[in-house]
Amino acid sequence: MYRTRTCGELRLSDLDETVILAGWVQKNRKMGGMTFIDIRDRYGITQLVFNQEINATLCEQAGKIGREWVVQVTGVVQERYNKNGHIPTGEIEIIVSELKILNMSEVPPFTIEDETDGGDDIRMKYRYLDLRRNVVRSNLELRHKMAFETRRFLDDRGFLEVETPVLIGSTPEGARDFIVPSRMNPGEFYALPQSPQLFKQLLMVSGFDRYFQIAKCFRDEDLRADRQPEFTQIDCEMSFVEQEDVLQLFESLTKHLFKTIKGLDIPDFPRMTYAEAMKRYGSDKPDTRFGIELVEIKDLTLGKGFEVFDSAEYVGAICAGSCASYTRKQLDELTDFVKRPQIGAKGLVYVRCDMDGSFKSSVDKFYSSEDLKCWAKRCYAKHGDLLLILCGETERTQKQLCELRLEMGNRLELRNKNKYNCLWVTDFPLLEKDEALNRFFAKHHPFTSPKPEDIALLDTDPGAVRADAYDMVINGVEIGGGSIRIHDSKLQQKMFQVLGFTEEKAQLQFGFLMNAFRYGAPPHGGLAFGLDRFVSLFAGLDSIRDCIAFPKNNSGRDVMIDAPSAIEQEQLDELNLQISHA
Amino acid sequence: MYRTRTCGELRLSDLDETVILAGWVQKNRKMGGMTFIDIRDRYGITQLVFNQEINATLCEQAGKIGREWVVQVTGVVQERYNKNGHIPTGEIEIIVSELKILNMSEVPPFTIEDETDGGDDIRMKYRYLDLRRNVVRSNLELRHKMAFETRRFLDDRGFLEVETPVLIGSTPEGARDFIVPSRMNPGEFYALPQSPQLFKQLLMVSGFDRYFQIAKCFRDEDLRADRQPEFTQIDCEMSFVEQEDVLQLFESLTKHLFKTIKGLDIPDFPRMTYAEAMKRYGSDKPDTRFGIELVEIKDLTLGKGFEVFDSAEYVGAICAGSCASYTRKQLDELTDFVKRPQIGAKGLVYVRCDMDGSFKSSVDKFYSSEDLKCWAKRCYAKHGDLLLILCGETERTQKQLCELRLEMGNRLELRNKNKYNCLWVTDFPLLEKDEALNRFFAKHHPFTSPKPEDIALLDTDPGAVRADAYDMVINGVEIGGGSIRIHDSKLQQKMFQVLGFTEEKAQLQFGFLMNAFRYGAPPHGGLAFGLDRFVSLFAGLDSIRDCIAFPKNNSGRDVMIDAPSAIEQEQLDELNLQISHA
Repeated sequence: MYRTRTCGELRLSDLDETVILAGWVQKNRKMGGMTFIDIRDRYGITQLVFNQEINATLCEQAGKIGREWVVQVTGVVQERYNKNGHIPTGEIEIIVSELKILNMSEVPPFTIEDETDGGDDIRMKYRYLDLRRNVVRSNLELRHKMAFETRRFLDDRGFLEVETPVLIGSTPEGARDFIVPSRMNPGEFYALPQSPQLFKQLLMVSGFDRYFQIAKCFRDEDLRADRQPEFTQIDCEMSFVEQEDVLQLFESLTKHLFKTIKGLDIPDFPRMTYAEAMKRYGSDKPDTRFGIELVEIKDLTLGKGFEVFDSAEYVGAICAGSCASYTRKQLDELTDFVKRPQIGAKGLVYVRCDMDGSFKSSVDKFYSSEDLKCWAKRCYAKHGDLLLILCGETERTQKQLCELRLEMGNRLELRNKNKYNCLWVTDFPLLEKDEALNRFFAKHHPFTSPKPEDIALLDTDPGAVRADAYDMVINGVEIGGGSIRIHDSKLQQKMFQVLGFTEEKAQLQFGFLMNAFRYGAPPHGGLAFGLDRFVSLFAGLDSIRDCIAFPKNNSGRDVMIDAPSAIEQEQLDELNLQISHA
Repeated sequence: MYRTRTCGELRLSDLDETVILAGWVQKNRKMGGMTFIDIRDRYGITQLVFNQEINATLCEQAGKIGREWVVQVTGVVQERYNKNGHIPTGEIEIIVSELKILNMSEVPPFTIEDETDGGDDIRMKYRYLDLRRNVVRSNLELRHKMAFETRRFLDDRGFLEVETPVLIGSTPEGARDFIVPSRMNPGEFYALPQSPQLFKQLLMVSGFDRYFQIAKCFRDEDLRADRQPEFTQIDCEMSFVEQEDVLQLFESLTKHLFKTIKGLDIPDFPRMTYAEAMKRYGSDKPDTRFGIELVEIKDLTLGKGFEVFDSAEYVGAICAGSCASYTRKQLDELTDFVKRPQIGAKGLVYVRCDMDGSFKSSVDKFYSSEDLKCWAKRCYAKHGDLLLILCGETERTQKQLCELRLEMGNRLELRNKNKYNCLWVTDFPLLEKDEALNRFFAKHHPFTSPKPEDIALLDTDPGAVRADAYDMVINGVEIGGGSIRIHDSKLQQKMFQVLGFTEEKAQLQFGFLMNAFRYGAPPHGGLAFGLDRFVSLFAGLDSIRDCIAFPKNNSGRDVMIDAPSAIEQEQLDELNLQISHA
């Protein structure tokens, strides 16, 4: 037996007990005739004591043990003279009588501490050492807990977890599939699923009624800051439900997770339509932890000779509290911020609402103090506040204002990581027009149901059709999203038509789903949560990477195992493949 | 709201309640002025009643509804006149007042009944309809329960479920990997994991202490009867454990599953060494539900002039109880059975132990009654029993006798699906020699630890080294297997040497693991269960396919979605790939 107890559990109540512990050496220090070793495992840290006077050989042996060596010790629990209030085992220590070195360790390339000296690259290369650090491992423990509590909650409510296949067919719509050549079917390829969408709908046709799966999904996309080529979804689907049933159930799940894992009681989630979210926050995933909402002031700016505003479709302002004292440098920073190519505004107009009731703006040439006062009034600006104004095409400008709003939220420290504001955004547009291609695309996916009252608009004004689609947004992050699906094969055909699919193409890509719908598909709908983001949110992380055990970098590489990599010609030959050298 | 109750829950206690139900039409029949419809959902079947005298229009409408249509009804629960004792809702029926057709259905290509008229091929093509059948869906429900109970059990014991990556590097050893071309890294490939083996060992190096994962694994193998290209493992690993710790824990898990899911108390698992299993059963996964053990009789057959036996390394018998009366035809069938190429015996010798105490055998020419009596005695044969004898090279003949033993078990109906005999097979050989290549291969995998007392033999007699490896066997099926791993990098290097890896090749393929071992790897070991087989065993299925929602056929095809398939040239171009036409 390697151990009788773990390194995290001994207390004063265990005094005089003889125990065996095993773990890693965190620290080794000599003080007078004593050697103290901190031994660590997943459960905690315990102090070991070797006394030269009692056992000189053992003490000498202990003195030679380096950091991260793996040791096994036998000893007696004794009360500590200098108690350590920072760790749960801080009241005791072990007087060691036997010591066995289970494995040695080279000096690690970075320190295994919460605050490490290792940079990102070296820690990813030695991820197995990075994972030894408590701060990293605890994210994975949280992930385990969230997944387990999700399963428990859904199991309690009659959901069945069904594994859908990972080797499926390629559907060229949307993001790129990873493909997998089939050796047994030369020239043919599987694809890895971007989501289990079609299979979960088939399971509804099969009468499974309530399905879920914590499923790996794959997208061969260019990886932006916080994307991974493989990611995990909590994927759910229910039959005989309306939107309200879905929202109620997954709102409860989310509350359950906040309660059981973070001990927080979250109030009922507000609902906000997509239209309202865009108008008030310039975003379909608004961060509602703070105000600074968008205010349209176009009508107040008209006809004063300022061509930039007059010719703009939209003029909008946000009011940053107590920022009238911003310096020229700070204002220039904000201007640079909105002019960055990722945001793309042409310029930024400001209005300082000074403490003395006067106004100072970058457009004083065109607008009187009285004009500016009207703007300030509509924005509920107080003396000392700062108005920031952008103009241009409506939706684009709203999105730019959203970015500026979030930036101000950061600067004013209004985005508290320990505060959680949850809401549902509903009534998304069904379609999105690609103006360049003059073609409509499904905003969510082609199986999303239009709102029944909007179906007639499919023929006359497709862009105005709203969908029975919804997103769960927490602190400005889209944590989950879903929709009621089309279950009527005629409506589905209509939808494909609007999306510009020929009948042949629809049949080729989604034929098996459309066939399935001919045999009694029930009304159904569902939702998927992004587990990686959900965990990151709970852990207060800046990147999903930190809650993934073995993540890939921005080039899709796992630098620890060095994958992807070249393979042997023999393997390619077996697959009837050649690499083309362009 | 689509329903207030499900089709499986109404009882006499719900009398007079007004309910809304939704589901599929299982049956529709007219009797006099009444129309009866059985409506089905996942939870059960409820009888609906439409009475011509009360509502002629509704009754007429109901009469037109076909099988598998999806309907929603409102009505009142009433006591049935003719009660149906076979279903839980059999005491009530619904007097329908409102009927809404939610979806129609074409006539399904086979009947949605427990006993269907659909053949295998058509059911796989319309798998979404096959999954509507209770017998199929209940296998998936069982799978959900087993996976969930496994998670609950392991979570209770401090195991963390950690997701390891699906896009990893290719390791050419062993079975073939599926590979995935990387678009962002042209000419390079990911591979899909055959198991999370290396990652779970890395997690032990990381101090995760107790890991598990219910993980999809992939093997591009030629698919024998009961293999799938993607399959699911319950994958586990523990640190600071010896073999006994692992066996104890996973024996408890298995007992827990039998108890909670099947209500069965399974006694402690017997242990049997590999050597004993081969000797007594000719198999490393013996079906111990019945006797008919192998008995070596070589010494008793020697020197009587029967060259076939005299020249054989091994002569072994099994005793089939009460089969002395087998006809010539039956004996010929058994001879044909053992001579099939899959088994490959040259012939079969029998000895009838007749009721009158006399013996009759196919080798009467060489052996006296007294000789045969000695054989019978060693086999504990009684009057009326039948000895079946094979000879040849030891291990091969034992395996042939094993097949014959299982065949006799089937014929004598000794392999009761409702009886469960569990055992551990231990002390597997570490290595297996490929005589043709004159090379040793790892029997389990190259990370398996030799028994400490056998390490010295690695230099002198590698084939004799036993491993700390174990299999869990239930009813002749290997349900799980694992080992204590090597945690010492020198021993691991030695092992690679014995397996004929050059240092470069070992470094190339397993470098990251060997590197990790330099930083304090703890002693560790684990095990993996085949979830598909485990569920099949619990469900009494003949094939794992029946407990997989969307399985592939023997050519690795999903005939429902028609995958794999050709992809567009554009996709290949993006991946820098060409299909070579041989």
